[in-house]
Amino acid sequence: MKSSLHFLVAARQHEMAALEQLGKACSLVVAMSSLVHALQKERGLSNMVLASGGAQGAELLAPQRLLADAQIAHVRDELDRLGPHPSGGSGARLCNAIAYTLQGVAALPALRAQVQAGRLTPSACTDAFARLIAGCLSVVFEAADSANEPEISRMLVALFHLMQGKELAGQERACGTSAFASGQLQPSARAQWLHLIESQERCFEVFASLATPRVLVLWQAHMAGDTDMAAVERMRRVAHTASGSSLSRSWSADWFAACSHRLDALHGVETLVAQELQVLCLHKLQAQEQALAALQALPPGAEPAQEGAEGAEGSEAGMAFFEASAPPDTWSLDAVGAPALGRDILSLVQQQSQRLQTMQSQIQEARTALHERKTLERAKGLLMAQHQLSESDAYQLLRQTAMNQNKRMLEVAEAVLAMAALVPQAPAAPAGPAAAER
Amino acid sequence: MKSSLHFLVAARQHEMAALEQLGKACSLVVAMSSLVHALQKERGLSNMVLASGGAQGAELLAPQRLLADAQIAHVRDELDRLGPHPSGGSGARLCNAIAYTLQGVAALPALRAQVQAGRLTPSACTDAFARLIAGCLSVVFEAADSANEPEISRMLVALFHLMQGKELAGQERACGTSAFASGQLQPSARAQWLHLIESQERCFEVFASLATPRVLVLWQAHMAGDTDMAAVERMRRVAHTASGSSLSRSWSADWFAACSHRLDALHGVETLVAQELQVLCLHKLQAQEQALAALQALPPGAEPAQEGAEGAEGSEAGMAFFEASAPPDTWSLDAVGAPALGRDILSLVQQQSQRLQTMQSQIQEARTALHERKTLERAKGLLMAQHQLSESDAYQLLRQTAMNQNKRMLEVAEAVLAMAALVPQAPAAPAGPAAAER
Repeated sequence: MKSSLHFLVAARQHEMAALEQLGKACSLVVAMSSLVHALQKERGLSNMVLASGGAQGAELLAPQRLLADAQIAHVRDELDRLGPHPSGGSGARLCNAIAYTLQGVAALPALRAQVQAGRLTPSACTDAFARLIAGCLSVVFEAADSANEPEISRMLVALFHLMQGKELAGQERACGTSAFASGQLQPSARAQWLHLIESQERCFEVFASLATPRVLVLWQAHMAGDTDMAAVERMRRVAHTASGSSLSRSWSADWFAACSHRLDALHGVETLVAQELQVLCLHKLQAQEQALAALQALPPGAEPAQEGAEGAEGSEAGMAFFEASAPPDTWSLDAVGAPALGRDILSLVQQQSQRLQTMQSQIQEARTALHERKTLERAKGLLMAQHQLSESDAYQLLRQTAMNQNKRMLEVAEAVLAMAALVPQAPAAPAGPAAAER
Repeated sequence: MKSSLHFLVAARQHEMAALEQLGKACSLVVAMSSLVHALQKERGLSNMVLASGGAQGAELLAPQRLLADAQIAHVRDELDRLGPHPSGGSGARLCNAIAYTLQGVAALPALRAQVQAGRLTPSACTDAFARLIAGCLSVVFEAADSANEPEISRMLVALFHLMQGKELAGQERACGTSAFASGQLQPSARAQWLHLIESQERCFEVFASLATPRVLVLWQAHMAGDTDMAAVERMRRVAHTASGSSLSRSWSADWFAACSHRLDALHGVETLVAQELQVLCLHKLQAQEQALAALQALPPGAEPAQEGAEGAEGSEAGMAFFEASAPPDTWSLDAVGAPALGRDILSLVQQQSQRLQTMQSQIQEARTALHERKTLERAKGLLMAQHQLSESDAYQLLRQTAMNQNKRMLEVAEAVLAMAALVPQAPAAPAGPAAAER
């Protein structure tokens, strides 16, 4: 017969098992961050080779592919370490996002062969790499969504938005490079470019709102003092104010170089977040181990007499459960590591209940950003499929509707999705994490 | 090196493991429903004994206690079957709710001894049993909250609201019995009584909105055709219109009998829901087993060539991942049991991704009712503690504020909780599931 203490301990063990899985998922996320950076570099060089008909970038592309392969091998190692059941409740979604990404990784040799043969336009090449990177990002998304520890959850959500913003910055690099190289900015390219700027800024805002103080210092230094960022801003301004007129083709290389440095700087911030994340995981695991050990060291006598035991009958002490609960004090199992002597199981259960409730609320808070993003992206994908719109047009449609109705974009997106759920025969959004998370 | 197919299967296995645990949690919930009913009967008889100074009900109380003990033994059996990690992500909260409830069960002999010795007022006795039952209900709440399958989740949320409404009906029986027995209705008792009526109706509304058609038929028959319900309504009306004036003491027994029959009828509806729940769990598990077996039977050749394999390089087929995703068709792994030949892993991953996304949205929908309830209860508990209000006064305060501000009660409750989070030194709500879920 299992006792109350058994389940008090089981609750902690459950948290601990989830935390161990979360630690492995975090290592995977860190590996994904490096893989994405390597793929973004490979995309940039591939585009250079394609745009120049093989005249430029080829000597850098071959070693960059080897670097990307090394990051893929690293990701595969982390996948092998994941264990049979990665993460908590949303483990199935995480597994599926991994399956999707591995499909993309398996198709990478075919993509490279197309680049080598010069059979792709730079724009098609950008889209192909973007799809693979979207798979990597969907793994980060699901890892963040399945995190059951508030601080880790918050940091993963921050990292996801940083990575997402950086990927949009990478797409902006390709978009601008091609505009400068062609010597002019077409209206559709212009709309896409503006959309990429606006979307990455939204991502970075969420990131900054969730980042830790240490990371924020580095981030603000990057945003304020970075000369590459200033160069990027200047060329953005020139390109978008020289509407219709011709762009200086010679800027193409400058733009590419400034954007590339900016991506490296963003990856530097990512690396710091990744380090903090891994330290945090270790710290949380140690605290959880201590709390569990303290619970397991409780004397069996701390358990009140079991139902049916004669000793308890009629005793006033046995009635403690039914008396008005005292306001919870500031004493916490986490804070001191070991339960004070004389603490009864009931108080421990009540404190644990409060702690779990607080954790749940905090996790919910961190996830809100994630779910708002997902809702907006799903609604955008649906509008793109239903009305054959470009991504930026679908976004503008959502935004304009929200402004006209004096509502938040999120509310409009929810209405779009709710309506689609009632009309199942309407063409649905493209399947797969690529559509959901890109 | 783990393949894409490995993770596609792992996602299913993860769902399956969660479903098996959910099945066990459902069996526990069904046992809890019977235990709560037995405890409600014991509470009614205990109050009768206490109110009559031992003259009435004593001969029924002893066997009712044995019946309650049998239900406790049944719950303990289900707890033993739960396994090391009950349920998915919120397993820790479920374990903790169980630990809390077992504390109450362990204290039941002491409560019974107090009843036996006549040392409690009926009102204190009602509160004590209500606290133990609140523990049982918190287990049902957490089981519903942790359910990762939309239909099961919906049914558990429905069952939780039915059980919660029935418990409020049980408290109303005690409230009315004592009012009729005393011959008058004090203003505070009157407010409490009205609060119990209103709260149970809110619970039943949520229940009816989520119930399956079969259950709904039985439910509507109970609400419309039940003569006990009509008797209860008549006596409610008389008690509340005879304001200030005296109540007929002879009605006390009639009221008790009509309410008791009503509780039995409500338990009948509960039993039907419990049966449907168990059939549904079996059905879902079988479907999941078939889908998993079909995936596992896929020929290894379905997996595209791995990264680095020379065969894939440059082949057009290898580029499938990067091409525009086809709109998902109506073909579904669940529907046919086995994947059609020629289906590639990528399509399976995309379909699974869509299925998991749909499931997540549906689960979120079912949980909304649960979380709204929890938010309201937490805000009420906070107001009660901060301003020394009764439950009904705290509820009225929330409702009046919402009306004055033209807002939903949920929004006001969220504001109350958000404010409290910013002022940590303010006295907090009583700890424990009792405060959270009652």
